[in-house]
Amino acid sequence: MKVHNFNSGPSILPESVMEQAAQAIHDFNGTGLSILEIGHRTTHFQEVLQEAINSVKQLMNLGDDHDVLFLHGGATTQFMQVPMNLLDENATAAYHVNGIWGKKAATEAALFGKVEVVADSTDKQNTYISKDFAVPRSAAYLHITSNNTVEGTQWHEFPETQVPLVADMSSDIFCRPADYKRFGLIYAGAQKNMGAAGVNMVVVRKDLLGKVNRKIPTIMDYQKHIAAGSLMNTPPVFAVYVSMLTLRWILQEGGLEEMERRNKAKSALLYQTIDSIPLFRADVAKEDRSLMNAVFFLNDPSLETAFLEACKQVNMIGVKGYRTVGGIRVSMYNALPLSSVEVICELMKDFASKHG
Amino acid sequence: MKVHNFNSGPSILPESVMEQAAQAIHDFNGTGLSILEIGHRTTHFQEVLQEAINSVKQLMNLGDDHDVLFLHGGATTQFMQVPMNLLDENATAAYHVNGIWGKKAATEAALFGKVEVVADSTDKQNTYISKDFAVPRSAAYLHITSNNTVEGTQWHEFPETQVPLVADMSSDIFCRPADYKRFGLIYAGAQKNMGAAGVNMVVVRKDLLGKVNRKIPTIMDYQKHIAAGSLMNTPPVFAVYVSMLTLRWILQEGGLEEMERRNKAKSALLYQTIDSIPLFRADVAKEDRSLMNAVFFLNDPSLETAFLEACKQVNMIGVKGYRTVGGIRVSMYNALPLSSVEVICELMKDFASKHG
Repeated sequence: MKVHNFNSGPSILPESVMEQAAQAIHDFNGTGLSILEIGHRTTHFQEVLQEAINSVKQLMNLGDDHDVLFLHGGATTQFMQVPMNLLDENATAAYHVNGIWGKKAATEAALFGKVEVVADSTDKQNTYISKDFAVPRSAAYLHITSNNTVEGTQWHEFPETQVPLVADMSSDIFCRPADYKRFGLIYAGAQKNMGAAGVNMVVVRKDLLGKVNRKIPTIMDYQKHIAAGSLMNTPPVFAVYVSMLTLRWILQEGGLEEMERRNKAKSALLYQTIDSIPLFRADVAKEDRSLMNAVFFLNDPSLETAFLEACKQVNMIGVKGYRTVGGIRVSMYNALPLSSVEVICELMKDFASKHG
Repeated sequence: MKVHNFNSGPSILPESVMEQAAQAIHDFNGTGLSILEIGHRTTHFQEVLQEAINSVKQLMNLGDDHDVLFLHGGATTQFMQVPMNLLDENATAAYHVNGIWGKKAATEAALFGKVEVVADSTDKQNTYISKDFAVPRSAAYLHITSNNTVEGTQWHEFPETQVPLVADMSSDIFCRPADYKRFGLIYAGAQKNMGAAGVNMVVVRKDLLGKVNRKIPTIMDYQKHIAAGSLMNTPPVFAVYVSMLTLRWILQEGGLEEMERRNKAKSALLYQTIDSIPLFRADVAKEDRSLMNAVFFLNDPSLETAFLEACKQVNMIGVKGYRTVGGIRVSMYNALPLSSVEVICELMKDFASKHG
């Protein structure tokens, strides 16, 4: 029986990517070797890495001002690495905090310099994106979380700023076209739209680097990684390979325009279903609803267990809300087929007819 | 035609491990899901992580004083993370530097506190392990590199110290039994004897932690990782899985005693062959020769290209020496079969009969 994978991350990947990844473990590109046992300085792997980098540049329409890195770790590593590289001890960074991950990012930054939290949406349990906020002109950068995985909100128009814009895009990277050129830095842990856990992608405008006074540990220094072409040390070879395959898949399927079309279709169907059934309720402001993670509730909380059980019966996984939020969370990343959303919408209607 | 994989890392893994890894990408444990798309907080993955931790404890005969972590990154990450956790700004750490990696570790440590290099073997191009050295009693720890991958030397008896002993075992982890209990901290990037690139194993004596004054970024803090059971953030799921499979293979094959027996048989055959053919020369002190990486030279350097070409003709990879050392390097990690060493030894004899 098919599993409907609504995991928030690690999450569903395209079937063709998984097939090719499995094949490469048996024999990578006819080398007679597994992708797990090839050297990272071989032409074979350098081609993988270069294709991944080029694909990111093509998808995001980036020029030579930006560099693309694939580094060890997840977004939590970047919470530290971004301020280490961009924030001097006596300087201030502005953090726009509308969810749990943005808060963690701000907390780590405070170890390296001053942090000004310029927006906070806890007055309404982070159910909206704060748009009315001011960024000090002297700020080293403004940090935003483009999609709040836990709370189900997403920026649909990125803020205009005088200072460099830094975004954690871990949970909505490559979900849609945007003017990515105007970002100073973008980072994303791979395990949602971009591949398997164990690698970070970092896009950085080169002119922002080399300006802090602290001595940055070698492995944390973006400039040194750029100089070494993401091969300063042994990279997470397999995770980079899976990212390359996923990026190739996005391009083959039609790029970010096509991803956005699919993501809008899937999320529109789900939100319409939620809105049309009185049994369910979504608290997120409509204009800020996430294309990736829909968070909703049963108006009668005592029905939640029965609903989760009904999901389980038809092999749906990952639908329980995050522990601090509760309710239901349905994640609809790029690789999730519309058919899985159709199945959960049908289930919601059935459930309502039985319990309504 | 079979490839003989003498890569120094990423390097050969057991065939059964690669088969199971490929299978888990298709379907992990009958879940209907790929290992790449399961949540890291599921029982499925927690069992994987727990088995990996338990296997390390069993193989190293560790008790409750030590904890085992699986963390993002490679040994280069640990070059920073170890002093960040163990070395106060005004304290001193002793570094035993007998090779390129130990030197890099010492350089990173100097960003966090004082570093005293207590041994240096550059007088003889790092062809031996320095045994005559003194460690200040006040040192926070003594750092050694248990096996010098590039230079082909290995500690065969670990030093007695008054201060905690810290070892980078990236290139010889699990190659032999030893009294691992007396180490304060052991770390290893996985991509040699323990799995695929993209994960570090750290064994740490808990009482050494929490003593430095600096504020440690969350993702770098061993204590927080211990508290979270290596699940503070999304771990590199697939890389941890491959490590677990490799650890299980070591146990099934007979544990560290059996690994040592095989490694001694392989390296003895190769070193005997080098010593018996006047065309070849190994410069490493006999008592310090590595079980893992044999570095040797052709006495007539003009024959090197022909020898490397002869290796290539019979599908041998990874035999060219590191760029700063030159010559030939044959890496013989746990998973390399004796038959591959027999093939290169035969080739060396043939080559000598043609060029001797």
